[in-house]
Amino acid sequence: MKTLQLELGPRSYPIYIGSGLLDQAKLLVPHIKGKRVAIVTNETVAPLYLSKLRAQLAAFQPVEVILPDGEQYKNLEVLNRIFDALLSARSDRNTTLIALGGGVVGDMGGFAAACYQRGVPFIQIPTTLLAQVDSSVGGKTGVNHALGKNMIGAFYQPRAVIIDTDTLKTLPARELSAGLAEIIKYGVIRDPEFFSWLEENMDKLLARDSSVLAHAIHRSCQNKAEVVAADERESGVRATLNFGHTFGHAIETGLGYGVWLHGEAIAAGMVMAADLSRRLKWLSSAETARIENLIRRARLPVRAPATLSSKRFLELMAVDKKVLDGQMRLVLLKSLGQAVVTADYPRAELEATLASVRDAA
Amino acid sequence: MKTLQLELGPRSYPIYIGSGLLDQAKLLVPHIKGKRVAIVTNETVAPLYLSKLRAQLAAFQPVEVILPDGEQYKNLEVLNRIFDALLSARSDRNTTLIALGGGVVGDMGGFAAACYQRGVPFIQIPTTLLAQVDSSVGGKTGVNHALGKNMIGAFYQPRAVIIDTDTLKTLPARELSAGLAEIIKYGVIRDPEFFSWLEENMDKLLARDSSVLAHAIHRSCQNKAEVVAADERESGVRATLNFGHTFGHAIETGLGYGVWLHGEAIAAGMVMAADLSRRLKWLSSAETARIENLIRRARLPVRAPATLSSKRFLELMAVDKKVLDGQMRLVLLKSLGQAVVTADYPRAELEATLASVRDAA
Repeated sequence: MKTLQLELGPRSYPIYIGSGLLDQAKLLVPHIKGKRVAIVTNETVAPLYLSKLRAQLAAFQPVEVILPDGEQYKNLEVLNRIFDALLSARSDRNTTLIALGGGVVGDMGGFAAACYQRGVPFIQIPTTLLAQVDSSVGGKTGVNHALGKNMIGAFYQPRAVIIDTDTLKTLPARELSAGLAEIIKYGVIRDPEFFSWLEENMDKLLARDSSVLAHAIHRSCQNKAEVVAADERESGVRATLNFGHTFGHAIETGLGYGVWLHGEAIAAGMVMAADLSRRLKWLSSAETARIENLIRRARLPVRAPATLSSKRFLELMAVDKKVLDGQMRLVLLKSLGQAVVTADYPRAELEATLASVRDAA
Repeated sequence: MKTLQLELGPRSYPIYIGSGLLDQAKLLVPHIKGKRVAIVTNETVAPLYLSKLRAQLAAFQPVEVILPDGEQYKNLEVLNRIFDALLSARSDRNTTLIALGGGVVGDMGGFAAACYQRGVPFIQIPTTLLAQVDSSVGGKTGVNHALGKNMIGAFYQPRAVIIDTDTLKTLPARELSAGLAEIIKYGVIRDPEFFSWLEENMDKLLARDSSVLAHAIHRSCQNKAEVVAADERESGVRATLNFGHTFGHAIETGLGYGVWLHGEAIAAGMVMAADLSRRLKWLSSAETARIENLIRRARLPVRAPATLSSKRFLELMAVDKKVLDGQMRLVLLKSLGQAVVTADYPRAELEATLASVRDAA
């Protein structure tokens, strides 16, 4: 097992990464406050891992909340089901909420923990690659709104993140690839050495070589933890973690939540952001090609869907948390490994990217 | 005009109290961040004061959100209308949200500000006496759930609180009395000198003598600011501000939100808490009578509604944010001016209070 620490002063917490961690009550229990827990999971994950967790937590009379599976359920209405369950069980302010599942479960469980009685303790147990390398770390929680992704939420840090790499054995191939998108992102925006390592090890990652996967997860969490420690509330560098996300969120919202997986949308979004960076003559053609190739090798889409027009894309992109005072800021690349947040690009170049990085209709 | 400062380190903010403040753009504008504002108000307050505020804020292209009036609308569904409006107007993370109205508007506006894009700047302009002396100060925001009052929310401090005492001229008498309940509370729990002053000035308060009202508001905000500065997140002394509230919330939830005003329910709840304190031989009969008399003189209910059985009361009280690890903690009085939070009372005495402090059926 490896342990990373996310350094946030009084809100610091450990990230445990290893095999078989779901069976180790000694990791989990010290982070539980109070005498009761509530487990939030979904209908896909529950049959696989809920009994394992329940077995460890019998002394804490766990309340169990099983949500439907999918990004289309990440909304206020489904969030309210968590509150229904907590209140029906008379869960108090000392109840520790545990999110067991992928990014949607973690985002909703974390937001429920942030809001229930104005805040209860929270633990993340991510079971998808995407959640393990990205969404479970750093305290971003929330739900979608019909008009925009992740528009309603809170910064709310967990007390611990427990990553059992064995859960990846049951992950569908499409979800594995979706997680690889966020892993590739760290290489692209700030860790070119890791990018090269990913180029060398992509086949092993897809074959689920456990030690190679464990390294990729560790290195990704390390990158994320460094960025979050430097800028918890995203007033600066943290925004670079949204590389590909303004484009990607537009795809997710435009197609309807759940049609493309988040990681898939981000994959195409990263190719678009790289393409725009190349048009600005910041990124070389060779670097742009390396990014696109690695994403393609991860079995991810490298083009936006044909059904979204450029006009619709621009409308959707205008509803982004990085928009400030009417300026649409984007995360672009000065080079492979160096991302910047900027509104300083000609609109015509953005439109050229939208027109070209798209599937043929 | 008087100014108080709520001291919370980097989250400190001023509370302005005076006549005609709604016309003074110079008070409001320095607290606005960004180039745009959104005003959240309700259908009762909008015709009275919205145009005044709008006139000052023309340069900030105000988005206006007009909610229905009443505690029964303080829920997640109506909250979502605020998000609908913000997203439709493409409000960004620099949009300052201004709550113009009573406690419900302030609680919902504040919670919307806490959650929209994970947090936007927020200003409180309370227009009811209750909001001016209590709910607009201290950063408690949130909505109700069918199973419990204020169960979903956030601690989220405003950047300023602007109290224009002229707004009390249009306040219905019932709402004035409701505000007096929270004013009396400060006297009861921590300021016996103020309690005596209220006994002397209750008739003037009811007659809306503006200088007497202004003093009562100032002294109440001072009390609240001191308590919140000492314990922002309610890990200790702040809970004493909930004197009467465990009983009162049970009345509000039990009757259905909006049937009794919050201040009315808290009034009866304070009489119940005083009665229980007397049964424990902490509070003298004379002090108990003074409390009940002052509440009665403020034209507030001093008995719980007959329709709520003791059994139902106990069920509803068990869903309270002060319940911890199964123990129902209550705010009780050691004497007039000295409140404590305790679970150390015989259940039989609580039941005796529930049986006796109730309207005849």
